[in-house]
Amino acid sequence: MRFTIQRDKLITSVQDVMKAISSRTAIPILTGMKIEAKQHGITLTGSDSDISIESFIPTEKNGEIYVENIEEGSIVIHARYFPDIIRKLPENTVQIEVDEQLQVTIRSGKAEFSLNGQDADEYPLLPQVETDNSFQMPTDLLKYMIKQTVFAVSSMETRPILTGVKFTLEKGKLNFTATDSHRLASRDVPIDAGELEFSNVVVPGKSLNELNKILDDTEEMVEISVTENQILFKTEHLNFLSRLLDGNYPETSRLIPTQSKTTIFTKTKELIQAIDRAALLAKEDRNNVVRLTTLDNNMIEIMSNSPEIGHVTEEVPIQSMEGEELKISFSSKYVLEGLRAIHADEVKIEFTGAMRPFIIKPINGDEILQLILPVRTY
Amino acid sequence: MRFTIQRDKLITSVQDVMKAISSRTAIPILTGMKIEAKQHGITLTGSDSDISIESFIPTEKNGEIYVENIEEGSIVIHARYFPDIIRKLPENTVQIEVDEQLQVTIRSGKAEFSLNGQDADEYPLLPQVETDNSFQMPTDLLKYMIKQTVFAVSSMETRPILTGVKFTLEKGKLNFTATDSHRLASRDVPIDAGELEFSNVVVPGKSLNELNKILDDTEEMVEISVTENQILFKTEHLNFLSRLLDGNYPETSRLIPTQSKTTIFTKTKELIQAIDRAALLAKEDRNNVVRLTTLDNNMIEIMSNSPEIGHVTEEVPIQSMEGEELKISFSSKYVLEGLRAIHADEVKIEFTGAMRPFIIKPINGDEILQLILPVRTY
Repeated sequence: MRFTIQRDKLITSVQDVMKAISSRTAIPILTGMKIEAKQHGITLTGSDSDISIESFIPTEKNGEIYVENIEEGSIVIHARYFPDIIRKLPENTVQIEVDEQLQVTIRSGKAEFSLNGQDADEYPLLPQVETDNSFQMPTDLLKYMIKQTVFAVSSMETRPILTGVKFTLEKGKLNFTATDSHRLASRDVPIDAGELEFSNVVVPGKSLNELNKILDDTEEMVEISVTENQILFKTEHLNFLSRLLDGNYPETSRLIPTQSKTTIFTKTKELIQAIDRAALLAKEDRNNVVRLTTLDNNMIEIMSNSPEIGHVTEEVPIQSMEGEELKISFSSKYVLEGLRAIHADEVKIEFTGAMRPFIIKPINGDEILQLILPVRTY
Repeated sequence: MRFTIQRDKLITSVQDVMKAISSRTAIPILTGMKIEAKQHGITLTGSDSDISIESFIPTEKNGEIYVENIEEGSIVIHARYFPDIIRKLPENTVQIEVDEQLQVTIRSGKAEFSLNGQDADEYPLLPQVETDNSFQMPTDLLKYMIKQTVFAVSSMETRPILTGVKFTLEKGKLNFTATDSHRLASRDVPIDAGELEFSNVVVPGKSLNELNKILDDTEEMVEISVTENQILFKTEHLNFLSRLLDGNYPETSRLIPTQSKTTIFTKTKELIQAIDRAALLAKEDRNNVVRLTTLDNNMIEIMSNSPEIGHVTEEVPIQSMEGEELKISFSSKYVLEGLRAIHADEVKIEFTGAMRPFIIKPINGDEILQLILPVRTY
């Protein structure tokens, strides 16, 4: 194997692929990165067996030469050293060459590294994903949907299925839902996916967080393909493959109240700042509990009390209010994360009493919903 | 106690004083911050008993009012919560008020915090430093001298005196010296200090690192006062007090070779980059060992070998060379830190053989010196 490559292109690909590589893995060769040279370009592969990432660097693009002097072949290289080496090389091009003893020579300017490689035949084959069950959506929209839901997945391994985000595609509508059983985030988007429908596709939250880091914020399309136990996200030069979580995701639609007794309409930013301040004293508490009380004259009071440290109260003006008076306590962390994920200047919050879940939505629109269970304080 | 204060001024002072406050301290009240209001301004104090910092906010400066409505008094407040509270308050002014039960009320806009305070009479009195033994120097020069030496202090508590930087003032010359017994950094500066002279003043490296973070990069003067066991750094609104280390600092001047057998003149940046690359493979090793070999034609070779991972070699052009051929191994970490601390475009490196300490200096000038012991590799 041999090729000469533009260093900046290699750096970007290596950084993407590294996101799948863990130094702690049961399969030692997966601590390495696979490099495969073909006449049409270079493919880098990293995997921790849950997530696999392939990045392709074409020989040329729009007339600009990315890779030259290709002699086909493949190798697995130490992923611990390779990224730093490439990053610190002195020149804009890098020559990589492998000899018959699997010694990898990396040359740039007058610097020459020689690394012990491993046989690429020992690297596991990635699962092949049939792309019949696939649909497309803009990359930036996918990133947005991930950010608006993934924070609500459970971090507890006691119910593994809740550590994932449930994807549903039904009647031309794609839904992401995440819950840790104390709060729930849900986001709908209309999608043109032809006849394709699926449900109970549960993608690990960790995979989605990594995917979100790798994908650029562009309007270019990402192709999503779903099988029994894998999901593939495919952009022009990147394949991101994740296993799905086993098991049945709980039915969540019946959790969502359909009527409300008290509705508050408020500017999002002012409410976030007031709860954020109240949470300063609540942080000692397991639940970061903050209390909201409706007042007259379109005001609410946000309050927190920590007997050993002190207490905080703040009156916050709201836009308007409908329904009954209310006094309710909740986790400031959950409400802040929900309010921030809404990404709307104004929100409505629908309560059904102090002991019932409440929901936060944009003031106009039902495409995103944040549901939060209150905390019992007496 | 009561006053109303510009929030941005309070934030800056609180951040400075926090650098002396530790949550782990044998004296519980030192986890708090002392606030003292006098008619001419507000003084904040933090201390971990090794370092004490006082920051003063005057009532007004250049006609701008910083503090108003002052009722004199003092209190000690939870340092864990106070900085975040001040930072997140909604308005540009803050009102702080203490009642007879030591309850501290912090108001800004419609937000009101109430914190449990502690009696300021229980806060330890800071040592008073006689300012007879004092001299002045520009703040930016002091910061520079700290940065050029403090990295070389020992991190091992086996010889506590080596965890400090030795200050010497003799014959109108201020010297900072630090060594961990594997390398040594030394910096001289001419100072107009009148009759004042001292030696064996050893300031903890930790204190100097904190001081460096707090001081602004200005040409304004800092006043330095030295006593038996304390050193005080005083700027217009800040008192930074540190204890000195007990014991006699070792005599280091005889370590410094006075003649050399091989001298290399080189551009600093190119050498740093080559050693930095070679160090990538050396990082597994306890000593990060890199080997330098002189070649013909004004070239040197930088090499590192890690049998399990691979090896790296690089030929680096130098400006010129005098004296014998040389092959020497050294800690890449020490040499990189030394080269970076020099802050000169070109350096000379003076060797006295493969087993003897070598020194790095700017190509013109003796005011800074980095000495490094080589590593025996055979």
